[in-house]
Amino acid sequence: MDVSETAGAGTPDLFSEEHSAEVVGASFAGTPDARLRQLMTALVKHLHAYVKEVELTEEEWASAIDFLTHTGKVCDGVRQEFILLSDVLGVSMLVETINHRAGGSSTESTVLGPFHVVESPPRALGDTISLDGKGTPCLVSGRVTGPDGEPVTGAHVDVWQANDDGFYDVQQPGIQPERNLRGLFTADEQGRFWFRSIVPRYYPIPTDGPVGELLAATARHAYRPAHLHFIVTAPGYCPVTTHVFVADSPYLNSDAVFGVKESLVRDVSLVDDHRRAVEAGLPNPFHTLTFDLTLRRA
Amino acid sequence: MDVSETAGAGTPDLFSEEHSAEVVGASFAGTPDARLRQLMTALVKHLHAYVKEVELTEEEWASAIDFLTHTGKVCDGVRQEFILLSDVLGVSMLVETINHRAGGSSTESTVLGPFHVVESPPRALGDTISLDGKGTPCLVSGRVTGPDGEPVTGAHVDVWQANDDGFYDVQQPGIQPERNLRGLFTADEQGRFWFRSIVPRYYPIPTDGPVGELLAATARHAYRPAHLHFIVTAPGYCPVTTHVFVADSPYLNSDAVFGVKESLVRDVSLVDDHRRAVEAGLPNPFHTLTFDLTLRRA
Repeated sequence: MDVSETAGAGTPDLFSEEHSAEVVGASFAGTPDARLRQLMTALVKHLHAYVKEVELTEEEWASAIDFLTHTGKVCDGVRQEFILLSDVLGVSMLVETINHRAGGSSTESTVLGPFHVVESPPRALGDTISLDGKGTPCLVSGRVTGPDGEPVTGAHVDVWQANDDGFYDVQQPGIQPERNLRGLFTADEQGRFWFRSIVPRYYPIPTDGPVGELLAATARHAYRPAHLHFIVTAPGYCPVTTHVFVADSPYLNSDAVFGVKESLVRDVSLVDDHRRAVEAGLPNPFHTLTFDLTLRRA
Repeated sequence: MDVSETAGAGTPDLFSEEHSAEVVGASFAGTPDARLRQLMTALVKHLHAYVKEVELTEEEWASAIDFLTHTGKVCDGVRQEFILLSDVLGVSMLVETINHRAGGSSTESTVLGPFHVVESPPRALGDTISLDGKGTPCLVSGRVTGPDGEPVTGAHVDVWQANDDGFYDVQQPGIQPERNLRGLFTADEQGRFWFRSIVPRYYPIPTDGPVGELLAATARHAYRPAHLHFIVTAPGYCPVTTHVFVADSPYLNSDAVFGVKESLVRDVSLVDDHRRAVEAGLPNPFHTLTFDLTLRRA
């Protein structure tokens, strides 16, 4: 029997506090897929560094096991608490940002969020997406262009938002009309899109699960600033998943999921123009929100 | 509106790849409990460092979300897949080691494992804990002493092990007798304990869940070397949770959960002594396993 260090080799066979990450990391050395091997070895390194830095107690470890178990248990077809956890720890935003580093003047991306779970219904330019009649009407418009300012004719503009009570349609089946505040628009030959909706409102992420308990225990609020989601796609261009944020919204500097980027913030304006109000199908004066998007070429 | 960096302060308000850990860490600055604040801030730091080092893709992130969700879903009253995950990543062993740094000659600890989920039945010295008649009989004995060699009279010696098929009783309800291979003994006035069991065998941890899939994907085996679990407690002394490992067992240098410490390995001997066999209640010759334990004073 030889349970001592392998003669002359760098990695001891047996676990020790000092060499924990090397010993455990070495157990993944035979992973056939090189990327998975890298992911697991690095995970072990950072996880062990964390446990050592804070000298995690056994009670804290047991609490973490319970928390993760509970988080898994509350997930179902329309609720993903692990994504919510990733969101409030800034991991979703970090992954999003790393994978979509914006180039030049192209529109920055932000988190998809957990509510793009149904397809948005195709609608004609100018249609309203507000089916429940709640909230302050607003004309949303913009233009999709490429890097040289060329219009992206026929770009698909997929939008969704929470209603005036702070809930997405899928969170309130039977209460909100189906596909309320969702729409898929096709930009015109000049790359323009416009539709009617409501002025977005800030709202809290779900707080009735383990993530809500974590926010409460850490005295963090659960609010996201007012925003409208976009996914814009067009042949020959990179798709962009983003939001437009309302400039004077509460929580703009403390989004619970860290989604705000300064380049994505726009003012909602009140326009007093009878002719335009009639065109838009809104009472005068009316609110407007303008968000132009620039796509990168694929 | 001011969504730029707070004038003069070190932490920007808004998320960026460069400052992600600082921005998210700052969101926990108001945590009332100082220890929880430390735990969350350090967690964010290490988690973000991991994501940045490997430049986690969105597909990999989604796989991680699915894996964690699945891991939570398979947990139930007798199965704890998150503990198993912690075990195979060496985190359980690291937490155990940090919290029970052995001093001087005291017996080293190792992982509790997920199978101490029922109370061991009190038994008299010399009793057998093997109720299913399977395996090679073995006399297990030892002595519990304090740091100066003084006997720890009346020490409680709680033991449990897998059966000869590699399963604990709680994994096979209705197949194994209840409380098979579990016992709670009380050391005599000289600190000695002895009981009959079977020679421990190596066995695999459960592989029919997400952790098994992880081991398969990384070409890691699922085996633990042969061992017998101990928890020894006595008034005035620190309790110790540990195993004795069998010296010639396969997987001694590659325990799937990293539990082996060199100081915990013992030979199983074959003894040819008719008088002692009769005393032990075993056929001659018989196997023996001796494991003396030294407790630290509380």
